[in-house]
Amino acid sequence: MNPWWHKKLAAVGLALTSSLIGVAALAIGSRAQSPQKAPRQNSQITTTSSQPIEIAGFSSSQAATEAQLEQKLLAIPDAARAESDLRHLTSAPHVAGTEGSHRVAEWLRDQYRSYGFDAEIATYNVWLPAPREIKLELVKPKHENIDSPEPPVPGDLDTWNKHTAPAYNAYSPSGDVTAPVVYVNYGMADDYRELARLGINVEGKIVIARYGRGYRGIKAVLAEQHHAAGLILFSDPQDDGFAAGDIFPDGPWRPLGGIQRGSILYTQIYPGDPLTPGTPSVAGAKRISATDAASLPRIPTIPISAQDASTILKDLDGRHVPRNWQGSLPFTYHIGAGRVRVHMKIAMDYRQRPLYDVIATLHGSVDDQWVLIGNHHDAWVYGAADPNSGTASLLEASRAIGELVRSGWHPRRTIVICNWDGEEPGLLGSTEWVEQHRTELQSKAVAYINTDVGVSGPNFTASASPSLSNLIRAVARQVRDPDTSETVYDAWTEHSASGRTELSGIARQIPGAHAPGEAPVGALGSGSDYSPFFDFAGIPAIDIAFTGDYGVYHSLYDDFYWMKHFGDPSFGYHVALARVLGIVALRLDGAGVLPFDYSLYSSEISRAADELASRVSQDSSESAALQPVLEAARQLSADASHEAMAVGALDGAPIDPALANHLSLALAEVEQAFLNPNGLIGRPWYKHTIFAPGSYTGYAAETLPGITEAIDRHDLAALRTESDAAVDAMIRAAERLNEVTRMAQPTSEPFPGPPSGRE
Amino acid sequence: MNPWWHKKLAAVGLALTSSLIGVAALAIGSRAQSPQKAPRQNSQITTTSSQPIEIAGFSSSQAATEAQLEQKLLAIPDAARAESDLRHLTSAPHVAGTEGSHRVAEWLRDQYRSYGFDAEIATYNVWLPAPREIKLELVKPKHENIDSPEPPVPGDLDTWNKHTAPAYNAYSPSGDVTAPVVYVNYGMADDYRELARLGINVEGKIVIARYGRGYRGIKAVLAEQHHAAGLILFSDPQDDGFAAGDIFPDGPWRPLGGIQRGSILYTQIYPGDPLTPGTPSVAGAKRISATDAASLPRIPTIPISAQDASTILKDLDGRHVPRNWQGSLPFTYHIGAGRVRVHMKIAMDYRQRPLYDVIATLHGSVDDQWVLIGNHHDAWVYGAADPNSGTASLLEASRAIGELVRSGWHPRRTIVICNWDGEEPGLLGSTEWVEQHRTELQSKAVAYINTDVGVSGPNFTASASPSLSNLIRAVARQVRDPDTSETVYDAWTEHSASGRTELSGIARQIPGAHAPGEAPVGALGSGSDYSPFFDFAGIPAIDIAFTGDYGVYHSLYDDFYWMKHFGDPSFGYHVALARVLGIVALRLDGAGVLPFDYSLYSSEISRAADELASRVSQDSSESAALQPVLEAARQLSADASHEAMAVGALDGAPIDPALANHLSLALAEVEQAFLNPNGLIGRPWYKHTIFAPGSYTGYAAETLPGITEAIDRHDLAALRTESDAAVDAMIRAAERLNEVTRMAQPTSEPFPGPPSGRE
Repeated sequence: MNPWWHKKLAAVGLALTSSLIGVAALAIGSRAQSPQKAPRQNSQITTTSSQPIEIAGFSSSQAATEAQLEQKLLAIPDAARAESDLRHLTSAPHVAGTEGSHRVAEWLRDQYRSYGFDAEIATYNVWLPAPREIKLELVKPKHENIDSPEPPVPGDLDTWNKHTAPAYNAYSPSGDVTAPVVYVNYGMADDYRELARLGINVEGKIVIARYGRGYRGIKAVLAEQHHAAGLILFSDPQDDGFAAGDIFPDGPWRPLGGIQRGSILYTQIYPGDPLTPGTPSVAGAKRISATDAASLPRIPTIPISAQDASTILKDLDGRHVPRNWQGSLPFTYHIGAGRVRVHMKIAMDYRQRPLYDVIATLHGSVDDQWVLIGNHHDAWVYGAADPNSGTASLLEASRAIGELVRSGWHPRRTIVICNWDGEEPGLLGSTEWVEQHRTELQSKAVAYINTDVGVSGPNFTASASPSLSNLIRAVARQVRDPDTSETVYDAWTEHSASGRTELSGIARQIPGAHAPGEAPVGALGSGSDYSPFFDFAGIPAIDIAFTGDYGVYHSLYDDFYWMKHFGDPSFGYHVALARVLGIVALRLDGAGVLPFDYSLYSSEISRAADELASRVSQDSSESAALQPVLEAARQLSADASHEAMAVGALDGAPIDPALANHLSLALAEVEQAFLNPNGLIGRPWYKHTIFAPGSYTGYAAETLPGITEAIDRHDLAALRTESDAAVDAMIRAAERLNEVTRMAQPTSEPFPGPPSGRE
Repeated sequence: MNPWWHKKLAAVGLALTSSLIGVAALAIGSRAQSPQKAPRQNSQITTTSSQPIEIAGFSSSQAATEAQLEQKLLAIPDAARAESDLRHLTSAPHVAGTEGSHRVAEWLRDQYRSYGFDAEIATYNVWLPAPREIKLELVKPKHENIDSPEPPVPGDLDTWNKHTAPAYNAYSPSGDVTAPVVYVNYGMADDYRELARLGINVEGKIVIARYGRGYRGIKAVLAEQHHAAGLILFSDPQDDGFAAGDIFPDGPWRPLGGIQRGSILYTQIYPGDPLTPGTPSVAGAKRISATDAASLPRIPTIPISAQDASTILKDLDGRHVPRNWQGSLPFTYHIGAGRVRVHMKIAMDYRQRPLYDVIATLHGSVDDQWVLIGNHHDAWVYGAADPNSGTASLLEASRAIGELVRSGWHPRRTIVICNWDGEEPGLLGSTEWVEQHRTELQSKAVAYINTDVGVSGPNFTASASPSLSNLIRAVARQVRDPDTSETVYDAWTEHSASGRTELSGIARQIPGAHAPGEAPVGALGSGSDYSPFFDFAGIPAIDIAFTGDYGVYHSLYDDFYWMKHFGDPSFGYHVALARVLGIVALRLDGAGVLPFDYSLYSSEISRAADELASRVSQDSSESAALQPVLEAARQLSADASHEAMAVGALDGAPIDPALANHLSLALAEVEQAFLNPNGLIGRPWYKHTIFAPGSYTGYAAETLPGITEAIDRHDLAALRTESDAAVDAMIRAAERLNEVTRMAQPTSEPFPGPPSGRE
């Protein structure tokens, strides 16, 4: 009996029923080619109700041991320790490139060492600005300063610190410009289309856009493409302020004076050091000039509060805005371009600044297979939720793993804990490290687990490579939700079924496809450090967090007081996150054959390809260009189905550990088969053909991104190129799956191979 | 050749293709039973491209004369006259029951007399309150008055008048209550369900609800049913204030100090004098006691401005509101029921007060057939848009008709112009008049055309009995839109296709079903004076208006300044409305066989019945109860199709005027066949089985209302009763249509009769 096998088949069935192509693959895979298996499968599935311990990737006997180990781990993370770690991490501002960040890195290194890890700091010198002078003033119709610092809050001493930097947008160029102002709603592509419809040109104007609906670097590049002279970003109370709920310090939402800092680096082109695209920023590295760096924004950009924004917006003239452009400030919004003029002056100090990544390793007996878990440690100010809640949880998970080692357990694979620097300005620390260790990672890393704003409330969310969606679902079933008596999985499912969506200023995860009643796992977009692992190196990845009402994102007020009063007063969700991280690590560490699920993966691809096909159904050339993609996806489904059965069938007998290791690495490397070495058209750093952040959304993922964007642009040549790349990728992936299938087949009882004559 | 016949068939086809049942009827009606006709029909339809003058209800030769007459009429209405009439009508407040209203009635009577009409005033004494004292104050957490009068506006002298009454809700009882406050969003049924879900009880509390989403009498009855102690209504800037656009005097939307007055009489039970339900309030009428009057509200209710509402709302405690309950005031909305207490004192002076309906008649040669056109004349203050824009247009339409008479034209049917008093407090003047003249109206009235807020912007809208939808579409094709070079019909179609919906505080018309590319005609709900004609007496009715950005509804600011600056600065839409009203009157007056369209009507019924059937498809008892309705609707479609063909076929030869008159009256009276003398369950005044305003929406129409509400309540007994009533009504209607079919058939060439064997 192999419980994993049952679950995997059930998952295959579930995934396949959501797609006609998937159903066809099932028919080929299980009924057409091995009809004699069907009844046995059914009876096996029924036996799952007899409740043996079942853990995907573990045989029954291994599973019992694993379950005991997991019980031990669950007992270790401690709310008081997470709280005191968070208090320490948030005791001073620690922006990337500053000494504050260095101090945090050293403290973290020492923590990991105290838990029994080999911990070191990896340093990179990257092109990174710091603000020298930030000035914004209304000059017409009257003079008024509109660059107010965030006001301190009685009772929250951290907000009285005089040593915080002015709010700025990282990678804004320096500039000095005075111009009339135009309100551009969220400043996204749709908004500029609406402005064009209204006959409004922003050339030479300063545009003011509210935060939300997409990454701020998209707003910057669109303002640049429309020839604006400058960009002002503000937080509208509709999106994360008083219209969402009570404001800090009475509630978790952004006060009128709160400012969202943040990077505008064009990470949608490439993240990391803008002067070393695709290569590590090490000593002696070849650096391009800043004028050649495609990820560097070109127009001055500044973030302001709702309060300061209202000083500009209330006096704008011109026509009143389209209905859904009106925000929650208490006056009628207007387009502007008339009487209101603003002067903005930004002086940025650009130079090479040091980043300090902390890398903590616990060597396993299979030292050439790595399980990586990470979070960044740099923060815009204190960063209680972003990122330190994740770090406090990661520390507790690491301490728990260390405790298990002290009590006699030894890891099978190697566990690597990473705390990145420079995530906020543009995923710098993780990108440079992945670029430096790419070859080694691609031959050793079996998965990268990320958390970032780890705890901002009680609602669990996850994004993942589809190959790992069911792993994170399974782990969430093992951890209790601290506020209820149910599992994190049940709370997650119920919250997502309730239809209540998170309102916070961050929108990194988008809901993914899922069967009714099943918890949704999103697709990986961008906005955190999994991006270099997944998008650039093809390492299977997961990103998890507990989310909630979180309006203080990237502001002074994302501090310990906020967390203690609103985010997680009991630190119970920090403990829950530590437990989830710990169990994920243990399972990826200890499993025989790692439970990658390529049936689900291929059915996600088929679903996306079908949607694209129906989008272009009116265009015969585009439809024709998509045909091979549909066929490759169908074939991949069939091959994934064979692989699932072949690996599942291994479970009858004890499996040779060497074979298990071999199969695990081969399965992990299927993700790399989806990479196109040339990358996507226009942004070669992004090499994954199946998933990427959207070029014009920034955070949200696109499936089959090259094809999707070629269709968006009606660019048939690009569509053909990207279709070819995706087809080649799927063929490579299918070949690797078939290799796994062959390796997994007992030589004595040959399993029907994949059909020959592919195409 | 009969152009009407072509149009009618085209309309039948259009209507029928939207319904499978309709298509079946077409098959029975035209192909199955008279296959030899099909080719001829097709060739006839093709010949319409040769552009003879086609007017539904007129033969070709009559149509040419009619077209000349219409051209004459179109030239008469005059913007300067409409403007000066509006200035006169809005020179002083003229609330129903006051001397101001009496003066307006006398002036109107004299105007109609000067145009050549026989004009008289009909007086009714009705139970009508006037405010003696209206007081609202915050008593906790601090004392503050929250019953501010609407502030005057520089440059608009009318707003400085010291003689305007305090804002009040007509038919609020007197009362004096102090209680904690609970915010109930819009105060509609859904909102109370949400409060129950949140565990919040409003018993003994003063509830505060924002205007919108339904008639304020529904908010009052729901507050009463939930045992609230009092009700405060306010205008949220989200709905018709600064969030919608610029506010008065800079724009057309409601300023923060603006108040929406209005009645809370339970007109959803019955409109008119609350003490004489269903009977005219004439001298010696039997009057019930106020305590027995089911239309009288029971808890004190008061309307306030957004400004005063913010004084209450900003201090409410308790949990913050569900996301879509947040309005546009600049703070987080809370549910309340805690620290905030309010004192409300309302002293109403209830007594018999006189109403003055103006009835102006122009006798035709067929004096036993009446075409009625009306609007009310009472206003909450000045009422530039509501109702006087409609009256100014109606005056110009009447003057134009009078001019035609002076130039030698003589009406065929009798034209009756009505200006109702007491519409605002509860359709009083029209209801009493219809109740008094019901028998005569049911034997003579062929249609009632209503306009009310006749001009509040440039967007034409219409609601109608489905029998008259195509008439109003055809008329709109004859009138130019003053702002563009296109017809009112084209502007109407384009605006509705744009998906931009009207935002004004009024929502009397809801979009009706229509074919793609066709202008939508809504179903008749309630909220204006067509209700007694249509719902109570079964007179076919139309309601039309030009709508737009109109935030000053029922406030001091709905004045001449508003109209001159925002609503219709050129008065071009007043002229357009006068033209539409004039042409509708001429066509209904002069047509041979009146162009009632029962194919469209029956297809609307079938569509509604099908929707209900799919709603109850899970419940076999409810489904069974609906079966006879589906069958009756199908049969009605078939009979309507026969009638359309029989009447259409008449057109080959000159038609005997006596037969035409006879057929016209018979066709008009089909609407009465839909009446159930017992009325709807729980509200016997509403006698129409096919359309009624919703019991819990108030303005919006329901189709098959008795059945719909029985299904809403899951009341199977009621469902059976109401289904029986609707089936009986449809059978009666079908019989009348078959009578028309028989009357219309030339005895020499028998037309295939309706299938026998109806059950």
